[in-house]
Amino acid sequence: MKKLINHPSDVVRDALAGIDAAYPDLTVDHELRFVRRADAPVAGKVGLLSGGGSGHEPLHAGLVGHGMLDAACAGEVFTSPVPDQILAATRAIDSGAGVLHIVKNYTGDVLNFEMAAELAAESGIEVASVIVDDDVAVQDSLYTAGRRGVAATLLVEKIAGAAAEQGRKLADVAAIAQRVDDLSRSMGVALTSCTVPAAGRPTFDLPETEMELGIGIHGEPGRRRVPLAPAAEIAEQLLEPVLADLDLAGADVLAFVNGLGGTPNIELYVMYNEVAAILAKAGVRIARSLVGSYVTSLDMAGCSVTLLRLDDELTALWDAPVQTTALRWGR
Amino acid sequence: MKKLINHPSDVVRDALAGIDAAYPDLTVDHELRFVRRADAPVAGKVGLLSGGGSGHEPLHAGLVGHGMLDAACAGEVFTSPVPDQILAATRAIDSGAGVLHIVKNYTGDVLNFEMAAELAAESGIEVASVIVDDDVAVQDSLYTAGRRGVAATLLVEKIAGAAAEQGRKLADVAAIAQRVDDLSRSMGVALTSCTVPAAGRPTFDLPETEMELGIGIHGEPGRRRVPLAPAAEIAEQLLEPVLADLDLAGADVLAFVNGLGGTPNIELYVMYNEVAAILAKAGVRIARSLVGSYVTSLDMAGCSVTLLRLDDELTALWDAPVQTTALRWGR
Repeated sequence: MKKLINHPSDVVRDALAGIDAAYPDLTVDHELRFVRRADAPVAGKVGLLSGGGSGHEPLHAGLVGHGMLDAACAGEVFTSPVPDQILAATRAIDSGAGVLHIVKNYTGDVLNFEMAAELAAESGIEVASVIVDDDVAVQDSLYTAGRRGVAATLLVEKIAGAAAEQGRKLADVAAIAQRVDDLSRSMGVALTSCTVPAAGRPTFDLPETEMELGIGIHGEPGRRRVPLAPAAEIAEQLLEPVLADLDLAGADVLAFVNGLGGTPNIELYVMYNEVAAILAKAGVRIARSLVGSYVTSLDMAGCSVTLLRLDDELTALWDAPVQTTALRWGR
Repeated sequence: MKKLINHPSDVVRDALAGIDAAYPDLTVDHELRFVRRADAPVAGKVGLLSGGGSGHEPLHAGLVGHGMLDAACAGEVFTSPVPDQILAATRAIDSGAGVLHIVKNYTGDVLNFEMAAELAAESGIEVASVIVDDDVAVQDSLYTAGRRGVAATLLVEKIAGAAAEQGRKLADVAAIAQRVDDLSRSMGVALTSCTVPAAGRPTFDLPETEMELGIGIHGEPGRRRVPLAPAAEIAEQLLEPVLADLDLAGADVLAFVNGLGGTPNIELYVMYNEVAAILAKAGVRIARSLVGSYVTSLDMAGCSVTLLRLDDELTALWDAPVQTTALRWGR
């Protein structure tokens, strides 16, 4: 295992310390392991909380800031945060307007966020939850009942974050988050396995001539192993199930090509080009796009493609200003 | 070789097509292979041009936009752009206020930019050049006489870009760019080799238990091979020559931890934490910071650390608004 880390058991602690040192606008609770906007709670605003296992950076801590998340809980690598963390973060960002939990659909995350939501409700905080489940690759998987939550989580966080920033009520923000999830689908491919620090060796073996289609962001098995293919074919294989599952005839979409951690931007640009060509042929118009490594799986080489069917409201919320360390635009 | 590409010879063409498709604010000349601001030339503003071999993305095309570069030329992977490209890009962004060439110190880049500058001057365009040579690892190397130009290139582009945006004259913008280079030092480490698409195999072999200190961004040999070490020791080994070469007693610095393409953010945060600890002990104050993969070496795992000694003027120019696809803040 070759990684820029100290002891494998200290990776999350050290990474949080690095985030704390690098970003003055963020405040880190090192004991309870959550990162929040230094100015949270924001008066009158619905608080947005996400989190999950570490290893997907910049998701979620890199997406904390104006116009997006108010806080993010960090579990150990690929391990759900515990209810105490989630409860503390929920309390820290509640202005009285309530808190939305944005939860990727993994059994541990769902259970622990649920438990924290109940405890928060008992102490008088209004909590709503949205479960993100955009991955079309598999129905049930190693850690999930139903579809897995992957890169659309970023889209949910951005768009719901903009709605919250406008002062909308909790139920309204939750409904928008749910709508983004309903209208998003993703599919990923791995060229290599990731290596979990504590394990010290690749999660799975993947021969030099093969790739894993439909990979999960924890290295969970995908749909099938197939021979390594040119980018154009890979893009076809990723988009086929996405397009089959989402009615996009004549639609505007946001196209998101996401790197899994070990793949550089030059390859993501190549993939984006193929995605754009396929969508043009299918009569789907790309109205917005995002290219980069935002929802990673440690050092896995590969990418995912996410499409979100846009409407005027979602587009306006996507375009609204955002100021996080990983995603920022507008004033 | 496992990459998300089509044919190895098409990587640069396909990546430029992807950039063109993804970013409406950028215009790509596919024949002459340069990317420019769609609104260039900007009336009255000094034009900023950089470029070099491909394989370092998002450098340079991802740094084209308001407050930074006006255009970037893309050579083949790790191969200098030719004078024709550089000349065409220079012409395309000259508003009459002249053009600054920002050139990483590699023999081919320096020669080709020089030739293009002469041709541009003959056609009446005022051109100034700054050669970036921030890498303390080696004095001369495979492709370079003198120190190599690496991650400080981004700092030069950002700060000179802000000066140009303020309407300063060419000589003034060039002097500021030179000052940023003079006050910057970098050093990198590779955990793995990169793989050049056309070669199809790793540029060098690096045993599972070793790393290469002082690596160049094309996989050029570094200072020495050493045993793999914890992040804290790696940070010491990277910073020692940087601190020895730059007088930073009591200084404010910009600290830039840069991923080389195959290393995910979680590891960069860990490295940043160690860098911050060392600087605190050395009495150097981090006033600004940047963490991410901006100046890459294809899929190489590893990172570089760059320090820039700040003064009030450089800090203000760093903070000025920038709107590129890879770096953006402010309005």
